[in-house]
Amino acid sequence: MDVTRSEFDIIEQLFASLTLGDPRALGLKDDAAVLGLPEGREMVVTSDCLVAGVHFRPQDPPESIARKALRVNFSDLAGMGATPTGAFLAAAFPRDVCDDWLEAFALGLKEDIELFDAPLLGGDTVATPGPLTLTVTALGTVAKGRALRRSGAKAGDVIFVSGSLGDSAIGLKILSEEISLTNEKHKTYLSGRYLRPEPRTQFGAALSELDGVGGGMDVSDGLVQDLGHICAASGLGARVELDRLPLSAAAQSVLEVSPDLIDIVLTGGDDYELLFTVREDAARTATDLAKSLGLRLTPIGVIEAGQGVRVLRPDGGQWKAARTGYRHFDGAQESGD
Amino acid sequence: MDVTRSEFDIIEQLFASLTLGDPRALGLKDDAAVLGLPEGREMVVTSDCLVAGVHFRPQDPPESIARKALRVNFSDLAGMGATPTGAFLAAAFPRDVCDDWLEAFALGLKEDIELFDAPLLGGDTVATPGPLTLTVTALGTVAKGRALRRSGAKAGDVIFVSGSLGDSAIGLKILSEEISLTNEKHKTYLSGRYLRPEPRTQFGAALSELDGVGGGMDVSDGLVQDLGHICAASGLGARVELDRLPLSAAAQSVLEVSPDLIDIVLTGGDDYELLFTVREDAARTATDLAKSLGLRLTPIGVIEAGQGVRVLRPDGGQWKAARTGYRHFDGAQESGD
Repeated sequence: MDVTRSEFDIIEQLFASLTLGDPRALGLKDDAAVLGLPEGREMVVTSDCLVAGVHFRPQDPPESIARKALRVNFSDLAGMGATPTGAFLAAAFPRDVCDDWLEAFALGLKEDIELFDAPLLGGDTVATPGPLTLTVTALGTVAKGRALRRSGAKAGDVIFVSGSLGDSAIGLKILSEEISLTNEKHKTYLSGRYLRPEPRTQFGAALSELDGVGGGMDVSDGLVQDLGHICAASGLGARVELDRLPLSAAAQSVLEVSPDLIDIVLTGGDDYELLFTVREDAARTATDLAKSLGLRLTPIGVIEAGQGVRVLRPDGGQWKAARTGYRHFDGAQESGD
Repeated sequence: MDVTRSEFDIIEQLFASLTLGDPRALGLKDDAAVLGLPEGREMVVTSDCLVAGVHFRPQDPPESIARKALRVNFSDLAGMGATPTGAFLAAAFPRDVCDDWLEAFALGLKEDIELFDAPLLGGDTVATPGPLTLTVTALGTVAKGRALRRSGAKAGDVIFVSGSLGDSAIGLKILSEEISLTNEKHKTYLSGRYLRPEPRTQFGAALSELDGVGGGMDVSDGLVQDLGHICAASGLGARVELDRLPLSAAAQSVLEVSPDLIDIVLTGGDDYELLFTVREDAARTATDLAKSLGLRLTPIGVIEAGQGVRVLRPDGGQWKAARTGYRHFDGAQESGD
């Protein structure tokens, strides 16, 4: 069943209610949104593009695709310590997208827009001869001067990561049937982590108010590559202990059977956990903060002089991988170290 | 020649200088930009998506594609009366994009970023198996409460349009060799209007300060369709005189040979001129304002009770066309009236 709606119908019938009546959206009837900024706050803006077949599988449930497009952007905001306040969606839909699909997609958007209290403020709806391509621009705010930056790490800082790593990359392998798993609960958990990441917005916002927090970001391209960005921006190196990496029970059970998959825990990406460094004397406060939000928080290593990320195995040897993390252009694939 | 750069190289080598050193961009090293808002101003945000083969021709010069992606967004800002202050680019490049193309593309971006003084503040660079897809999110500011809206038209308002209409739609027909033209100057002018629209940012900003301006927007989908949006948002109708439509000398010469092309003047879109309504007693001020900026401004009709757009031919009959303007999803194509 092809789409029977024009883009104007799609906007009016499916997207207009996603503004939650927010006056900044002007009812999606104008070409732009008009917004202010509360006293003492700065605006944080991020824009991420997701392509079917690259960032999600075309056959993923439309609700999940919608929610993921929002969530990866909210995760960027969380990585900067900002609280989401709104989103723009520029959607290029394949011309043969059907009404049922669009309705389910809009429903997924709505769930998360309400959950994160970040109304749809505008965007664009176009047709494409190519794959579904979604660009969300998310707006957030943070107290003036308190945004977390990649460049703030100091030598001696403890490196923390929230939640658990590798679930999503393993979940994708399960969904694409590269790995088979008999434990249904683990299967559901891991694929759910791929389909519907959990941006750590509350924890990110709380971290921005904490003194002693250095380099911070969300892990989207894989731990080693993203920690490498913090190192490069801060002009320092990092040492990570392989056996400290936080794993879910489900990922642990997969790794017991396929220990080589530790590589995708380090480089697979799509984790959307918070990665940040903290001055040693503030580490306890960060831990308590995470605890108060019911969030797992794990110290995985330290920032040190030098450059690059060293991952140490329990035997003292250094982990080496074929790549450091996700790269879009293969011609430029580099080996990790 | 394939791309030899990773997305990180593309960002660092080609895009980082496009921030023009603006501190809000954080050197494109973080996942988001951090920005404030001057006292007494509101932020205006728009996000437009351009797809190769839909919004531009894949073979168009990369500089033009880059500039068009920025300019259609700056035109949306102009339509709201806002002055551009920055842009985000989420680019999905085909995996086989070559370095030369990317360099020319970045050069085009740079020219306009400098021209409009709207630094690149962030974005995303990904690979796509489909056509080049560019989403620009443009930020602008306007004095508090002065943004132009589609909903502000009043019965009796004069309808104005800036510049000339139809050039771009005719220019596309020339580029795709549907029309042949011997006059080289006209050919260059018309195709240039397609390749490099002129967003009326200065005039839009000036209009926002003028009392008596009602409904306003930029013409991107065709005059009849866009004026229809102003009518619908304002709960009124519009009467347009066909022989008042502003035409360039080049378009005029084409219409003399092919008078039927008047349809694409009314519905072709891609004009990026400003369309707005003004209280009759303020019409002279608007005209003087345009004159002071060296911009052609033409009264083309009036807002009246009722609904929809009526276009009257010189003989008093009503113009009818197969469609009112550009629509992305053909299943929903409606006839104009």
